[in-house]
Amino acid sequence: MTTTTADNADAVTTAAWRTVDRTPLSDDTVSRIDRWWRAANYLSVGQIYLLDNPLLRTPLAREDVKPRLLGHWGTTPGLNFLYAHLNRVIKEREQSTIYLTGPGHGGPGLVANAYLDGTYSEIYSDITADAEGMRRLFRQFSFPGGIPSHVAPETPGSIHEGGELGYALSHAYGAAFDNPDLLVATVIGDGEAETGALATGWHSNKLCNPAKDGVVLPILHLNGYKIANPTVLARIPEEELRSLMVGYGHKPYFFEVPDDAPDPAAPDDAHADAHRRFAALLDDVLNDIADIKARAAGGDDSRPAWPMIVFRTPKGWTGPDHIDGKKTTGSWRAHQVPLSNARDTAEHLGVLADWLASYRAEELFDDNGTLLPDIAELAPPGQLRMSDTPYANGGLLLKDLRLPDFREFAVDVPAPGATIAEATRVLGQWLTEVVRLNPDNFRIFGPDETASNRLQAVFDGTDKQWNAELIGPEVDEHLARVGRVVEMLSEHQCQGWLEGYLLTGRHGLFNCYEAFIHIIDSMFNQHAKWLKVTNHIPWRRPIASLNYLLSSHVWRQDHNGFSHQDPGFIDHVVNKSADVVRVYLPPDANTLLSTYDHCLRSRQYVNVVVSGKQPAPNFLTMEQAVAHCTRGLGIWEWAGSEVLGTDPDVVIAAAGDVPTLEALAAVDLLRIHLPDLKVRFVNVVDLMRLQDNTEHPHGLTSDAFDMIFTTEKPIIFAYHGYPWLIHRLTYRRTGHANLHVRGYKEEGTTTTPFDMVMLNDLDRYHLVMDVIDRVPSLGSRCATLRQQMADKRIAAREYTRSHGDDIPEVKDWVWPAARKLGVEAAGTSDTGGDNE
Amino acid sequence: MTTTTADNADAVTTAAWRTVDRTPLSDDTVSRIDRWWRAANYLSVGQIYLLDNPLLRTPLAREDVKPRLLGHWGTTPGLNFLYAHLNRVIKEREQSTIYLTGPGHGGPGLVANAYLDGTYSEIYSDITADAEGMRRLFRQFSFPGGIPSHVAPETPGSIHEGGELGYALSHAYGAAFDNPDLLVATVIGDGEAETGALATGWHSNKLCNPAKDGVVLPILHLNGYKIANPTVLARIPEEELRSLMVGYGHKPYFFEVPDDAPDPAAPDDAHADAHRRFAALLDDVLNDIADIKARAAGGDDSRPAWPMIVFRTPKGWTGPDHIDGKKTTGSWRAHQVPLSNARDTAEHLGVLADWLASYRAEELFDDNGTLLPDIAELAPPGQLRMSDTPYANGGLLLKDLRLPDFREFAVDVPAPGATIAEATRVLGQWLTEVVRLNPDNFRIFGPDETASNRLQAVFDGTDKQWNAELIGPEVDEHLARVGRVVEMLSEHQCQGWLEGYLLTGRHGLFNCYEAFIHIIDSMFNQHAKWLKVTNHIPWRRPIASLNYLLSSHVWRQDHNGFSHQDPGFIDHVVNKSADVVRVYLPPDANTLLSTYDHCLRSRQYVNVVVSGKQPAPNFLTMEQAVAHCTRGLGIWEWAGSEVLGTDPDVVIAAAGDVPTLEALAAVDLLRIHLPDLKVRFVNVVDLMRLQDNTEHPHGLTSDAFDMIFTTEKPIIFAYHGYPWLIHRLTYRRTGHANLHVRGYKEEGTTTTPFDMVMLNDLDRYHLVMDVIDRVPSLGSRCATLRQQMADKRIAAREYTRSHGDDIPEVKDWVWPAARKLGVEAAGTSDTGGDNE
Repeated sequence: MTTTTADNADAVTTAAWRTVDRTPLSDDTVSRIDRWWRAANYLSVGQIYLLDNPLLRTPLAREDVKPRLLGHWGTTPGLNFLYAHLNRVIKEREQSTIYLTGPGHGGPGLVANAYLDGTYSEIYSDITADAEGMRRLFRQFSFPGGIPSHVAPETPGSIHEGGELGYALSHAYGAAFDNPDLLVATVIGDGEAETGALATGWHSNKLCNPAKDGVVLPILHLNGYKIANPTVLARIPEEELRSLMVGYGHKPYFFEVPDDAPDPAAPDDAHADAHRRFAALLDDVLNDIADIKARAAGGDDSRPAWPMIVFRTPKGWTGPDHIDGKKTTGSWRAHQVPLSNARDTAEHLGVLADWLASYRAEELFDDNGTLLPDIAELAPPGQLRMSDTPYANGGLLLKDLRLPDFREFAVDVPAPGATIAEATRVLGQWLTEVVRLNPDNFRIFGPDETASNRLQAVFDGTDKQWNAELIGPEVDEHLARVGRVVEMLSEHQCQGWLEGYLLTGRHGLFNCYEAFIHIIDSMFNQHAKWLKVTNHIPWRRPIASLNYLLSSHVWRQDHNGFSHQDPGFIDHVVNKSADVVRVYLPPDANTLLSTYDHCLRSRQYVNVVVSGKQPAPNFLTMEQAVAHCTRGLGIWEWAGSEVLGTDPDVVIAAAGDVPTLEALAAVDLLRIHLPDLKVRFVNVVDLMRLQDNTEHPHGLTSDAFDMIFTTEKPIIFAYHGYPWLIHRLTYRRTGHANLHVRGYKEEGTTTTPFDMVMLNDLDRYHLVMDVIDRVPSLGSRCATLRQQMADKRIAAREYTRSHGDDIPEVKDWVWPAARKLGVEAAGTSDTGGDNE
Repeated sequence: MTTTTADNADAVTTAAWRTVDRTPLSDDTVSRIDRWWRAANYLSVGQIYLLDNPLLRTPLAREDVKPRLLGHWGTTPGLNFLYAHLNRVIKEREQSTIYLTGPGHGGPGLVANAYLDGTYSEIYSDITADAEGMRRLFRQFSFPGGIPSHVAPETPGSIHEGGELGYALSHAYGAAFDNPDLLVATVIGDGEAETGALATGWHSNKLCNPAKDGVVLPILHLNGYKIANPTVLARIPEEELRSLMVGYGHKPYFFEVPDDAPDPAAPDDAHADAHRRFAALLDDVLNDIADIKARAAGGDDSRPAWPMIVFRTPKGWTGPDHIDGKKTTGSWRAHQVPLSNARDTAEHLGVLADWLASYRAEELFDDNGTLLPDIAELAPPGQLRMSDTPYANGGLLLKDLRLPDFREFAVDVPAPGATIAEATRVLGQWLTEVVRLNPDNFRIFGPDETASNRLQAVFDGTDKQWNAELIGPEVDEHLARVGRVVEMLSEHQCQGWLEGYLLTGRHGLFNCYEAFIHIIDSMFNQHAKWLKVTNHIPWRRPIASLNYLLSSHVWRQDHNGFSHQDPGFIDHVVNKSADVVRVYLPPDANTLLSTYDHCLRSRQYVNVVVSGKQPAPNFLTMEQAVAHCTRGLGIWEWAGSEVLGTDPDVVIAAAGDVPTLEALAAVDLLRIHLPDLKVRFVNVVDLMRLQDNTEHPHGLTSDAFDMIFTTEKPIIFAYHGYPWLIHRLTYRRTGHANLHVRGYKEEGTTTTPFDMVMLNDLDRYHLVMDVIDRVPSLGSRCATLRQQMADKRIAAREYTRSHGDDIPEVKDWVWPAARKLGVEAAGTSDTGGDNE
C-alpha cells in the first residue's frame, strides 16, 4: 500500500500493482459489466441523436432528433467496453489509473462514462443523474452553447483532447514519468497508429524506468477503418502485426470479436463471451505488469517486454448492421454519424428507435432515469474513478518548484561587454541546481540536443534516462536508468512527453534547435488551445507553463546553413490567444537567467525563450538584468548617446542576442563617425510589450510606448525573426510609419556569423546606412560615410571568401567600455558541439 | 530490356531487375571497390578539413587546414561504402538507381562520389578532375561563397536535402510511384529512424504496387549514435530489431562490421572481408527483388516481403579510433568534426595527417591528381551514374499534363447566387478527367480525406491504390491494387510522397483538412527552400508546383469545433520567398476550377488553394471567373452600389468563400437599409495581389491598388484567416490606415456555421456595424440601425441555442438577384462526410 499525498487534493490511496487470482467472472459480474457497457452505448447514441425524450418513454418522434447530427460513433462502443472492464480491475486492485483515448473524437463515450460513474454530475450540477439530467446531457452534446463533440478540456478525466491524432503514446509516457504507481491505459486508434508521432511513440518504452515510472498499457483499437478507408494495421497478417509489436518491445495480447450478426435466439451470448474473454485477458495483463513491477522493485532494472493489447472489435460495434442496404457496423460507414438522415423518413427514424431500444434502457435505469445501483457499483470509489483521477487535473497535484536563487549564477559584468559567456551554458548551471532540488517533478526534454544546446552542466546534477541497452562509460556518457533528462530524436515525442508531464501536474522544459521547432507547430496549437479553454473551466486548476528553450538559433547555423529552417515559430505562436503565449528574447546570459526563473514560476502559459549558445558578450549586470526583464523592454542609457532633456535624433531598437550585438556595434560606429547624433538605444526582451495593452496583457500603453519610441523620430529596429512581425505588433502605434525593421530574410547559405547578418542586411554597417537614410538632418552630408559603410561590407564579404573566417574588425569588436578595459572579443570561430 | 524515353533527356536504357549469378568477388574487384571507397573517404575528410595541399604532396601544415571546421564525418564513410558497392551492381545489372540519403548531413560523401564518377566536373567545370580541381573541391565545402555542408540542391544526384530528418522513406516511395524500373536505394540514419515521419514511412510499402511502381530498398544505417546519444534501434536486441522490420513488412538482411581496430599486420583484410560479405549480400538482395518483380510481372499482385538491409558499421568508420584519449570512431564523438581543434597543436595536426595518409592517396590518384582509370571504371556509364540520374533532376523528365478544358465543367450561374454547388465536388469532376488523361504521371495524395473533402467524383476515373489486404466490395469501396489516389492517415507521408513524386518529374496535389495542415509546416519549409535554391541552379530544370487543396476549412468544422486548428498555414507560407509561394482563396466553384487549372500548369511554386466543400452559392459565370482569377482581385460591380464616375463611400472587400458570402449579405443589408450609401465590393482570389509589386511578383502597383481600394475611404475587409496577415500584406499601402480587417480569431466551440462567423465578428450584421462606425457621413443618424444589427446577432445566437440550427433569415438568405429568380438557399444543415 502506498499513499500519494498532494497538497491540493484529497489523498489518493492505492494498492499499486496488486496481483489478483485469475478466476472466471461470475454471471453477475458479466451482467453488470455488460449493462454498464450498454448504458454507456445508449448514452453515447443518445448524445449524438436526441434532443428530447431521453428514455424513449414515448415513441421516438422526428422532433426528438437533433436537426444537425454531429459527432462520431465508430470508435465509441470500443472505448465504452474498455472503460467498463477497466472499472472492474481498478476497483478490485485499487489501481490508480488514467484513461487516455487517442481516438478523442469518441467524445460521447467519455462523457457517458463520466456521467455513469457520477463525476459528471458532481462537476456539472445541472446534468443530474435522472431523466431531466439525461435530457440535458444529450441536448448539450455538440450543440450550440453546449459541449464539444470530441474529448476536450471540458471532459472530466481527460488530459488528451480529440482533434489532431497521434499523441496518445507521447502524452501517456509523459503522464507515466515519475508516477511509479500510475497505470496509464492508452487507447490508440488504428487510424492514429498511421501518424508519424504515434508510430515513433512506441519507442518511448526505452526511456521509461520500470521501478521509478508508471506503466503505459497501450491498447491498439483495431476497429479496422478510418473515415473512408481501411487501416493499415488491420490489413496485415496477424503474425506481421505481432512481429511489429514485439519489435516495438511489447508483449502483445490479442483480443478479437468478429463482426458477426448476433444469434437471434441468444443475442447476449456473444457479448457475454466477449466479456469473459476480455476480463481474463485483462487480468493476465495486469498480473503480468504486477510481476514486472515486483521484479523492478527487487532491483531488476532491465527493460521488460511490456504487455500491450490488440483490441480487434467491429467499428461501430452494436450499431445497425446495414443502413439503406449498405454495410455499416464493421465498416468505415460507422465512423461518424451512421444514420445522418435519421429525421428524413419514418424508416430511418425506425432504425434509430430500434438501435436505441436494443440497449434495453429499462434494464439500466430506474423510473427516475437513474442508473441502477448494482450497475453503478461497478465503478471504483472516489478518485479511483478514471473520470475523477487527480492525475487528469494536474493543477490539483502541482507543487511549486524549489528554485535556487538565479542571482547566484550571475556572470560578472564589470562593464557592458567586458565579459564573455555562452548564455545557455550559464543557464545550464542554474538548471543543475533546479534538477537537484526537484528530483521527482521536473524534467528536461530534448531531441538529442541538450548537450549541443550547451546545457551540459545539468549532467553534473543528473543523467539522461535510458532504459535500452548500455555498453559502457567510454561511449555512454551521462546515460543511466534514471535521470531528469529525456532525449530521443523526435521533437514530437519531446513535446508530447512534456505536455503529458505538465498536464499531470509537474514542471519541465523542452530544449530544441530553433531551426526545427516548426516540426511541432500543430502540437503547440493543440496545447495552446487547451490552456486557453481551461482558463475558463473553474474546476481545472492551473498547470505549469510549457517552456521552450530554443537555441542553436537561426543566426548561428554555422555547420548547417540554409538546410536548416527559420525563426517563424515566433510568428506561429503569436497567432494564438494573447492570454496564453509569451515570447522572450534575452540579449545575454544574465537576462536569460532572469527570464527563465520567471518562466519556471509561471502557470498556464506557453513561454518561448530564444537564446544563443555561442560565446557572446554580457551586457547587463544581474541587477540590471532583473530590472530590464521585469520591465520587458527599456532604454539602455549606457548604450545611447542622448542628451537628457532633449529628444533623440533616432531610436535604435533590438530584440534578440545577435541583433542586439549588431545594433550596439552600429551605435559604436555612429558615436565615432557622427558624435553629435543623439541615439536612443532600446532593447526588447519581452516581445509582447510591443503590442498594445488592449491586445495583450503585457502590452505597453500607448503613452508609454510613445514615450520610449517617440512619435516622430525614425526607429531602426534590429529583430531576431521575420521583420513583419514587428510591424504587426506595432501597426497601431503612433510612430509606426517611422519604424524600419531589419530582420531575418532567409537568404542562402553561409558559414560565418557576420556573413549571415550581412546576407540579411542586419549587420552594423547596414544599420548605420539605415540611420543615414532616415535621419533627415544627415542626408547628403553623410554620403561619404554611407559609402564607407557599404565598402566595409564589401571588404568583410571579400575577407570571408579568402580566409574562411570573419574579418578581424568584426570578430575582435568589443563595446567601447570593454575596449577601455582591454577585453578580448568573443570571436566567432567556436564551432564545437552545434551538431545536427 | 526496357527503355525510358523522356522528351527533355537522353534516353535511359536499363535492364531493370536483372538476376545475376552470385559469384564471389574477384580480388581485383575487391581492390577497386576498396580503393573507390578510400578515395571517397579521402575526399570527404579533405573537404571537411583542408584549405590547400589537397594531395599532401608536402607535409600537412597548419595553414592547410580551414580556420573554421564545419561538417559531419560520422555518417559519411558508411554512405561512401554503399555508394561504391551500388556502383558495381548498377553497372553489372544496368539498373537505373537513385540514391537517397536520409543522413543528408553526410554531404561531403555525396559530393565526393559525384566527383569520383565525373558528374561533378561535368556540371561544375571549375572543379576539375585534377589536383587543382581537388583543391577547389575541398576549399568550397562549407566555406563562405562555397557549397553547403549538407546534401543540397547543389549536389548532383540528390532530391533529398540534409537538414530536417525524417523524410527519406516518404521521398523514396514518392520517387518509386509509377517508375516501375527504378531502384530507390534509401539510406535511413538510425537517428532519423527515431523521428515520427520516418517511423510511419515504413508502412508506405502497403501502398506500393510491385509491378507498376519502382522498388524502395531501405538501408538502415545502424552506426549507433546521434549527436550525443546512442540510437534506440542500435540498443535493442537484434531479434527485436528483426521483428520490427518483419512487422514493417520487410525481409531484413543483416550486415555488421564490428568496431575493431585493424590488424596491424594486415590492415586491409578486415575491409576486404567486409567488401566480400556486403557484395554477396547485395547480390542476394537484388536477386530477391528481381524474383519479386518477375512474379509481379507474371500477374502476382500480392504484397511481397520486400528486402531491406540493416547496415551496422562503426560511426566515423576508418577515422581516428581515439582522439585525446577519448573513444571517437564508433561513438557519438565522430558525429560531426571529430578533430575540431586540428590546427591547435602539432599533435592534433599529426592525427589529421595520419588519418589522411591512411587512405593512401598515392594508390588512388595519379600524379595529376586524377582518379586512376581502373577505379573510375567501377562507376556505371552516363545516366546510370547515381549522381547523373535524370530521376534526380525531375525537370528533365517532366511532361506537361494533358488538361481537359475546365470551362466544360463550369456550373451554370444564370445570376449571382442563383445556383448552389459544393466547390470541391465540382473540382473533383474535372480532376476525374485529369486522372484519366494522365494515367502515369499525376497522383492525388490525402490523409484519408479525399472523399471527406468531396473530391469523390475522382473515383469514377480511378481507385485508391492499396496493396495491403482486401476484404471485399462491401467495405472496400474504390480500393484497388493500382490507382491514382494514395491515402494514409499521415500528413507527413502525403507531403513526402508528393515531394518525391514531383522531384522525379511528375505532377500531383495534396488534399488536406485546413485544420491539420500545420502538421507539415516544417516539410513545407524544406521544400520551399529547395525550390528557391533550385531557381538559381541552371542545371536543375523546373519541376511541377506542389499544389495544396485545403478544404474542410476552419469556418466549417461543424463536427469538430474548437478541437481543430486554424488558418495559420497561410501565414506560415507567406513567410517564405515570394518567388515560390502563391495563395489562392477562390470564392466559389467556377473560380476554384479556374484557379486549379492554373496551378496544375505552373512550375516551381507552392500553390496553396483554400476552398470549402459545403453547398454554397455560385457567384461568377465561368467567363467572369476566368477574368477574375486572371486579375487575381477585382471589383464586383454587380455586388456594389457605386455610382460610376463618383467615389464610393466605403469599400467592402472579401477573401475566402465564407467571408465573401457574409460580405455580400452585409452589402444586401446596406442596400436595403441605406440605399444611398455607395458601396464598392472587392473580391480577392490571389492573396499576393495585396502586396506591393516590389515585394511579390504578383503584387499590385501602388497606383493600381489605390485606384481599387481608394486612398481615403474606409475599407472593411472580411478575410478567411488571421486578420493581421492582411495588415502585413498592405501596411505600405497609402490607404492602410483606413483598413479594418475582420477575420479568424479562434474563439471557442461552435456547431452551426453562423454561430461560427458571429463568434469571430465576421458576420453580416457585424460588418454592417463596422460600416456605420467607419463611414463619417453615417454616425449617429444610424444609431438605430446599428442597434438593430446588434439585436439581430443576439436573436440569431438565441435561435441556435434553442433550435440547434441557424436562424432561417440567415440560412435562407440568397443574393437579391437570385431572390428575384425564386432560388432557394444552400442552407447550412449539410453534415455528411466531413469526418475526422
